[in-house]
Amino acid sequence: MAVVTAPKQDRSRATRQRLLEAAVACLAERGWAGSTVSVVAEKAGVSRGAAQHHFPTREDLFTAAVEYVAEERSSALRALPGHHIAAVVGAIVDLYTGPLFRAALHLWVAASNEEQLRARVTELEARVGRESHRIAVELLHADETRPGVREIVQGFLDMARGLGLANLLTDDTVRRDKVVAQWAQVLEAALGTRG
Amino acid sequence: MAVVTAPKQDRSRATRQRLLEAAVACLAERGWAGSTVSVVAEKAGVSRGAAQHHFPTREDLFTAAVEYVAEERSSALRALPGHHIAAVVGAIVDLYTGPLFRAALHLWVAASNEEQLRARVTELEARVGRESHRIAVELLHADETRPGVREIVQGFLDMARGLGLANLLTDDTVRRDKVVAQWAQVLEAALGTRG
Repeated sequence: MAVVTAPKQDRSRATRQRLLEAAVACLAERGWAGSTVSVVAEKAGVSRGAAQHHFPTREDLFTAAVEYVAEERSSALRALPGHHIAAVVGAIVDLYTGPLFRAALHLWVAASNEEQLRARVTELEARVGRESHRIAVELLHADETRPGVREIVQGFLDMARGLGLANLLTDDTVRRDKVVAQWAQVLEAALGTRG
Repeated sequence: MAVVTAPKQDRSRATRQRLLEAAVACLAERGWAGSTVSVVAEKAGVSRGAAQHHFPTREDLFTAAVEYVAEERSSALRALPGHHIAAVVGAIVDLYTGPLFRAALHLWVAASNEEQLRARVTELEARVGRESHRIAVELLHADETRPGVREIVQGFLDMARGLGLANLLTDDTVRRDKVVAQWAQVLEAALGTRG
């Protein structure tokens, strides 16, 4: 039996993964109003029935998608080679300016007006936020036992989120690069990693 | 004639203002999908015809509304008594956590998926962004002739925007107050207003 079920499980996992990736892309491109299970199933090349087997509701699919992609990005970030502060700051800010942030933003805004989504997205956001904070502390070698360091890291992640928002309607790369270069220095001094 | 038309103009201006305020409240509470000229007219106690006389399209009404309220807030900010840095930082961050920011956020996200809105909101955003920057520079007594100061003020406004986003789904006041207190010190040191 094991010989027969293993490939089935693999196929099922691959299908789930294709659906999650298509769901994030769909949310980033079309927003919540344009994102349905059918649209995502078609985009992923999966039947609507198979999609609904994996994700019974629209809320299930899109919250799972944002969580899955956030985990993928966290792993990539943890694997970052070298820990020079400017590179770390740049890599963290990059997380907030790509399609994942765009997808998450659509989900947050939709959740602020839809009761069904609200509780789930709030809970997801808290989990993803804690994980981002943990990774930032680790990569920045921040010593949270020192007073104020926790808030400094949090404020930096708030800035990254704001930079993501500024990139929503126009390509903000040129301005952002200058802001990030300057704030990497400020952050370094504030964290006392050299001072 | 002047005696007759003056009160008419006043009434017209008052109607316009009621519509703009109702439009921002509507956008903040219901999002773009739930915001139409009819809904706003009813909320403002104005006939649909009168509303359409002032604002022929939905896009006209909501972009004008966000601009009007942003101008109101800018004036309030300029009139801020005393210029202690912690108070200034707190007042600027407050601008990004209230109903105006919520309304603007809904408009930005809708504009990212709707061609008709995109150009207008992008242009509005640039104007409001420049004005916020100018006010922040003034209130913080930041000397933009010094290298890096411009980017430091920009990054702070990005942080304020990120703090606004973090307040969308839950009341983030307690965490935010600590972050703002800490970053006011960092900003003060970075701007060299005392150092």
